[in-house]
Amino acid sequence: MERFGTVAIVGVGLIGGSIGQALREHGLARRVVGIGRDAARLAEAQHLGAIDVATTEIARGVAEAEIVVVCTPVDRIASDIIEAARASPPSALITDAGSTKRKIVREVEADSLARGKFVAAHPIAGSERSGVANARADLFAGRVCVLTPTEQTPPALLNRARDFWSSLGSRLIEIDPATHDDRLARTSHLPHALAAALAALVGPDLVPLAAGAYRDVTRVAAADAALWTPIFLENRDAILDALDAYDRSLAGFRAALEAGDEARLSAWWNLGRENRRRFEGQNGGGTVAS
Amino acid sequence: MERFGTVAIVGVGLIGGSIGQALREHGLARRVVGIGRDAARLAEAQHLGAIDVATTEIARGVAEAEIVVVCTPVDRIASDIIEAARASPPSALITDAGSTKRKIVREVEADSLARGKFVAAHPIAGSERSGVANARADLFAGRVCVLTPTEQTPPALLNRARDFWSSLGSRLIEIDPATHDDRLARTSHLPHALAAALAALVGPDLVPLAAGAYRDVTRVAAADAALWTPIFLENRDAILDALDAYDRSLAGFRAALEAGDEARLSAWWNLGRENRRRFEGQNGGGTVAS
Repeated sequence: MERFGTVAIVGVGLIGGSIGQALREHGLARRVVGIGRDAARLAEAQHLGAIDVATTEIARGVAEAEIVVVCTPVDRIASDIIEAARASPPSALITDAGSTKRKIVREVEADSLARGKFVAAHPIAGSERSGVANARADLFAGRVCVLTPTEQTPPALLNRARDFWSSLGSRLIEIDPATHDDRLARTSHLPHALAAALAALVGPDLVPLAAGAYRDVTRVAAADAALWTPIFLENRDAILDALDAYDRSLAGFRAALEAGDEARLSAWWNLGRENRRRFEGQNGGGTVAS
Repeated sequence: MERFGTVAIVGVGLIGGSIGQALREHGLARRVVGIGRDAARLAEAQHLGAIDVATTEIARGVAEAEIVVVCTPVDRIASDIIEAARASPPSALITDAGSTKRKIVREVEADSLARGKFVAAHPIAGSERSGVANARADLFAGRVCVLTPTEQTPPALLNRARDFWSSLGSRLIEIDPATHDDRLARTSHLPHALAAALAALVGPDLVPLAAGAYRDVTRVAAADAALWTPIFLENRDAILDALDAYDRSLAGFRAALEAGDEARLSAWWNLGRENRRRFEGQNGGGTVAS
């Protein structure tokens, strides 16, 4: 017998599709229902083995769901959750995969029905490639998934959310929504903006001279604007704070360089190097050409 | 019979060691002489098969060299070239592997003996890991090597430099030293500084929440300060110009974000995305988690 009954996935792209594939590949769910706005994409998800059945209507798709996972862009998640809360069984767990949490949690908790079913989540996994064609059953294996429960989150529901995300191979971290957004602004949202700002400077004439450093720094700039614009807007204040801190960090470099001060440049460089080395020690490194 | 006679490598780290391994693995040189300041490191290079013989004295090491390749940090390259020019045979070709070119070429061309033996080069290959232990015979295979000849460069010598760098598998690009430095400021030097500036912001508390975007953007921040501080200083003006352009690019993001302007944010993002996609088309991509 499967660990979960019907799991409904709202938004079957890279993340939703990978959840579906993981559930199906490991026989974790009795049935995986894919819900989306585009019937052709749902057919592709079905063809790729990410879902068992498909529908373009949230109400129909969640009607028998034990678990609903909302994987739409962050500016649609709260309303999709609230809509799913209306149509799903009373005992349903609703969770999400949004890269921002504060605004989503606030909006969902303002809805008395939805807040009793919801545990916010953010699996930190993904790629600059989007769409179900890039989905992989092992996308979450060994990767962090952040849960951001609040005082309003029913403890039994939180346990079910832990069980669900763990079953996909995630390592769980639990923090509050505001802390999540402040930290992810620095570890994810800001880096995406920095990558795009650099990529904008390197036009066709420079491409032949761009190698490993450019390739790595700008990799995530290939991601979809449709995903990232809403993330920036949802987490605007924390990203602006992170950008201020970044400007100060880079100003340290500029000042040392303008002064031609080798010792200061070296000390500045080593600040970052130490953090980066620590990350490598904890997360595994991998040499790449630069 | 080998393509080259004695090749002397001054500075047997990642780059110099990889040159030695490529020459020896493909039987391109009659003898590879390693020259360095640290006898223990030279012994390691010999043990790893990067060089045949070793010496800590440039004059002795280059005495019979047909080709001298100077792979020391950029602030030592010009004086090492001039020293090698004094002690090498009259017909010797001296080339280098420095990441900056303008200042090195200017200093070498001010020396009447050295300028008649020198062709400046920059193989765009490397890694955030340094040292001969990370050297690889295929480091240059298919990668760009920039040659920056000037009006002072003897044409026959330039041909020999082309032959040498091509023999390691490099694809050659020829531009003038100033253009090289301006372009590399944007494609390599600035990205290194941006990586370090971000890494400095992500301390131990944030490391567990850092994933693919942080990993890729900061990868090159793990490199040695001893290599990068001199590069920044040698190419200071071009890097400061690139930094100005970067600040303007990032200011476009900040303004759109502060205004909460989705269309502007999206247009800004797509500027970088288009360049990045073009790079991927030309250089090969590779999906990574973010």
